[in-house]
Parts: sequence; C-alpha cells; structure tokens
Amino acid sequence: MPSEFDLIARHFTRGTSHTTLGVGDDGALIAPAPGCELVISTDMLVEGTHFLRDTDPDDLGWKTLAVNVSDMAAMGAKPRWATLAIALPDADEAWIAAFARGFFACATEFGIDLIGGDTTRGPRNLCVSIFGEVAAGKALRRSGACAGDEIWVSGRPGRAALGLAHLQGRTVLGEPRRSDCIAALQRPQPRVALGLALQGLATAAIDVSDGLLADLGHILESSAVSAQLKIAVPPAPTLERDAWLCGGDDYELVFTTPPTKHAQIAALSKTLGLDLTCIGRIEAGPAGRMDVIDADGAPVIVPRRGYDHFANGSAPART
Amino acid sequence: MPSEFDLIARHFTRGTSHTTLGVGDDGALIAPAPGCELVISTDMLVEGTHFLRDTDPDDLGWKTLAVNVSDMAAMGAKPRWATLAIALPDADEAWIAAFARGFFACATEFGIDLIGGDTTRGPRNLCVSIFGEVAAGKALRRSGACAGDEIWVSGRPGRAALGLAHLQGRTVLGEPRRSDCIAALQRPQPRVALGLALQGLATAAIDVSDGLLADLGHILESSAVSAQLKIAVPPAPTLERDAWLCGGDDYELVFTTPPTKHAQIAALSKTLGLDLTCIGRIEAGPAGRMDVIDADGAPVIVPRRGYDHFANGSAPART
Repeated sequence: MPSEFDLIARHFTRGTSHTTLGVGDDGALIAPAPGCELVISTDMLVEGTHFLRDTDPDDLGWKTLAVNVSDMAAMGAKPRWATLAIALPDADEAWIAAFARGFFACATEFGIDLIGGDTTRGPRNLCVSIFGEVAAGKALRRSGACAGDEIWVSGRPGRAALGLAHLQGRTVLGEPRRSDCIAALQRPQPRVALGLALQGLATAAIDVSDGLLADLGHILESSAVSAQLKIAVPPAPTLERDAWLCGGDDYELVFTTPPTKHAQIAALSKTLGLDLTCIGRIEAGPAGRMDVIDADGAPVIVPRRGYDHFANGSAPART
Repeated sequence: MPSEFDLIARHFTRGTSHTTLGVGDDGALIAPAPGCELVISTDMLVEGTHFLRDTDPDDLGWKTLAVNVSDMAAMGAKPRWATLAIALPDADEAWIAAFARGFFACATEFGIDLIGGDTTRGPRNLCVSIFGEVAAGKALRRSGACAGDEIWVSGRPGRAALGLAHLQGRTVLGEPRRSDCIAALQRPQPRVALGLALQGLATAAIDVSDGLLADLGHILESSAVSAQLKIAVPPAPTLERDAWLCGGDDYELVFTTPPTKHAQIAALSKTLGLDLTCIGRIEAGPAGRMDVIDADGAPVIVPRRGYDHFANGSAPART
C-alpha cells in the first residue's frame, strides 16, 4: 500500500496560480488583494449522511468543492483558495484518483488553488474550507432585506431533489428531464457569476442548500422581516411541488433587491443566460413569517421548510 | 433532543473581538491587517485514530484547537481566527458543552475568534481550520535551513509519548513527572511566543507533531541538507530514549539558526522561560540524511522516525 505521503503527493499536489506558499509546510501562505475582505466558509460531508457509499467519487469530488463555492457565490465573493481534509477507511487509490479528478475539475472551473489539507484514516469524511475575496464592505449578507424588496430565485430549485427521487425509485422522470435533474444533484453549478453581479444590487442573499423556503427563512430571520410569496404551484402537495419549495442541494441563489432594480435584474438574467424569477416581496412583519399563495391567490400550505440533522432528517444543514 | 441549530447557537456562538462578520451567514468576513500575509492550516482529528472514545471532552476541545495553533507557531504567525466542523454520532449536550469549554479556553488563551463551522451527524470527527497573520515575507518555512546552521528544540519532546505510555500501562511514572507528561499529552502548549520571536532569527522551523527526528527530517528534505545530531541519550533503545527521539504529539518547535545567533537564542530562552537546546548542526549532504551520536560521540541507531496512517501506524501525520 503506498504511504499516505505518496498518495497526497500524487493526487492532491498541483501547481497553484495565485498562492505564496501551497501544500507542504506547516501552513499555506496567501496574500489577499489590498482593499478586499476575505470570506471564509467550511463544510463537512459525511458518508451515510450527505452521500452514499457507492456515490461516484468523481461526482463527489466536484460536489465537495462546489457546495463550498456556492457559499462564496451567496456572499458575492470570488472563490480563490481552498483546503481539503479527508478521512478515508483505506488507501483505495482508484477512488482517490477519481475523487481528485472531480475536485480539481471544479477548482479549475472556478479558478481555485488547493493550498493545504490533511489526510487521515477513519470513516469517510470530507471537510473543505474555502476562501474568497470581496471588496471591503460589499459582501452580500442575509441580514439586509427590507420591506418592499422583491424576492428572486435563480434557476429552478427542486431539480436536485427530483433527481434524487428518481434515483431512489420514488418517481420516474423521462428524458431530457432525468439527465437534467440528476446532473443538478451530482454536478451542481454554483452561481458565482450571479453573486458577483449582485454586489450593489442585492440587499440580502443565500444559497439554496436546505430548500427554497428554509433558506429564504434564514434571510427573513436575519433581516427581521416577513415575506409574501406568489408561486405558480399546485395548492396540494405533489412531489414536484414539494421539491420546488423544500428540496435542498440545488445551490441556486435566493436574493432580495429594491423594486427599483427590477429591470436591472431582468437584464442580468439575459446577460448570464440564467433564469431569475421574482417570487414575492418582503414585508414588515414578524421575523421569519412567510405566506405562500399560488398564481390564483389561493393559500398554499407548506408542511415543513427543510432539514435538521439532529432533529428530523438526514440532509445537510449548515451554520 | 434539541435541534442542531439550538446546539450550535448555545455552545459555539460567542462574541468575536476582531472579526467583521462571524458565525451565522454563508461565510465569515475577516480583514487581515495591511502588509500581512495570511497563514492557513487545517487538521482533522478522528475518534479511534487520534483520540479515544473516552477522552475527556474538555481536554479534547483544548487539544483540537491547540494542534492547529501549533502550526501557526511553527510558521512564526499570530493565530487570529478559526473554523470548527464537527461530526457527532448524537447530540450529547454534556459532551458538547465540555468540548466547547476546552476549545474556547484555548481560543481565549491565544486570542482566537471562532468565525464559522459546520455540525453534522456521523462518526465523531473534528476538523479545524486556522488563520494567522504574519508580516509579508517573514513566515518561517521548512525550506530555509543552510549548512552550518545550528539545530534547536524547545522544551523536551517525548513527554506526551511518556504520558500516553503511562496511561496505557506500558510504563509507570512517579509524580511530579506523571502529571507533567499527562498534561503534555492532554493540554499541549503551542509555542506561539517562541515562533513570533524567531522571525528574522530562524532559517527554518517545524512543530514536533510526529516525532523530533521525523519532523526534523521534513526540514532536511525541504531544505535539501543533512544533519549531525549530538544528543545525550543512551545508545540502546529505551522507552524514554525513543519517546525523546520519536514520540509525537508534543508540539514543541524544532528550528535552525545561523551560529552567529547562538547568544540571541540563549537569551530568548531566558526571556520566554522556556528551555531551548542546541541538538546539532546542519551539514551539506544528501537531503534528509541524519547522523545521531550520543554525548560521548558514539553512534545512536534509530529504528524509525515517525508514523504514517496508511503505512505502519496510527498516530497523526500531516501534509
């Protein structure tokens, strides 16, 4: 069996493009650009909780980094560096090679240097920390939504949840929907370009990791406001409807903007080639309250908003 | 059972003293001081590999952060911020409270803000990323040792290994040695003040996590030099001798300095109240070669230098 150091050197040491000192010392050295703040986020993915033992390691490598990149997008930051700590039950080199291939595909796509990490023996666990740059004072936070703001969502949340339902045999999707939804689950596309473009436009933003309503709820709580949502969904629960409202793992962005910016957001949608849909309005009211009506104005009853590891579910939830 | 968010809020959200935005958004925001580079390191601790199930959670909280602080010390950096990702098999609040107590004791001791993290269900796993500041160009690296440099070590490595041997019944230590060695194992004291003082004095530095010879070996490899060590140990293996040469987990610093700095290092030892011992000299020669002689000049045979998770051992090894 090759030694740990061989494995790391072979698969996880690549050149860096904008790093003073990368992997191989007690710490990495980076020099954030003058005038920028550094945005930092960390996520831990555990086998059996966030992914299954037989998940394709190439896809898993992509997703492990992509979910962190998405946090940078939600902050309006440009992702620049990442570290990767891994616990593995054995030194399965084919698995490690495929994981590294997916991980670096995502790193290359978003211009990220891998600058450090740790490899150890243990139940499979992947922990990424990611570092992005944002002009000082320009980060998008959850706490800035104001009464009167419009609420927007990118893409169409729920595709990843439908892809999972198909793979688990809970529904049958026909092509091309099937491929689209499975790709949304396995190779999510963080909305970095959108996040950067929203600097100076959005008053608040978050990425949809736990579900559209759950994550919008975090904006409402942080901003101490309510929301009135008008969404073209059936009033009664269906898998499709619940995936759209409550499905996690899509990594679209939900954001709020003053109504005066409506035309700019519509234009941005064209520029980016990305659907941006206005789904409602922020209102003064109890923090976190959310009223959902359908296209005809009839109330939509939503049973739950998302997941919580230690209370009632098994999908990811974050700090 | 309290929800994940309740647990996090109750035990891991504390005030910050030098952070723009802490826990609670998609990312934290920090503003490194102008003229500084940021030093980044990450370590993952796994139950059964790095600590035992019945490890006191208060001690474990301290050590989880302290081993990362030690990486900052080895780089000559001032630790400033950290993130903590945890996987836990259950929401055992007494365990979490004790772990948080130890973790924040270390954070307070070294002036570190906890700025983010992740909590998830899974086999117990603790992953810290740490961020320190160092004046641009002043970081201590492993790669700067030159022929003629003196090799120094702080404190007395091996205490942690002896403490572990005592706890495992492989030796019996009398007081006060017993308490001293067990404290070295359970509450290691990272040498941050020493690391900061070595800026401009040391040509290379590393912390002793895998063992004195193993970690000195990393300096020799990175610097492409050899070493002649003269150490007052018995020539034949004893537990005490092997702990001193090969025992990990002490978090002392090994560093090299030009011989012209000898008096300054001796004075620094007095200032810091910390033993600093000159154990040999760097020589031109094959990268990594190490000759060890005892106080009488007789060669000391050393069987192995450290541990490797996937090859032959179970103690920590890092990138």
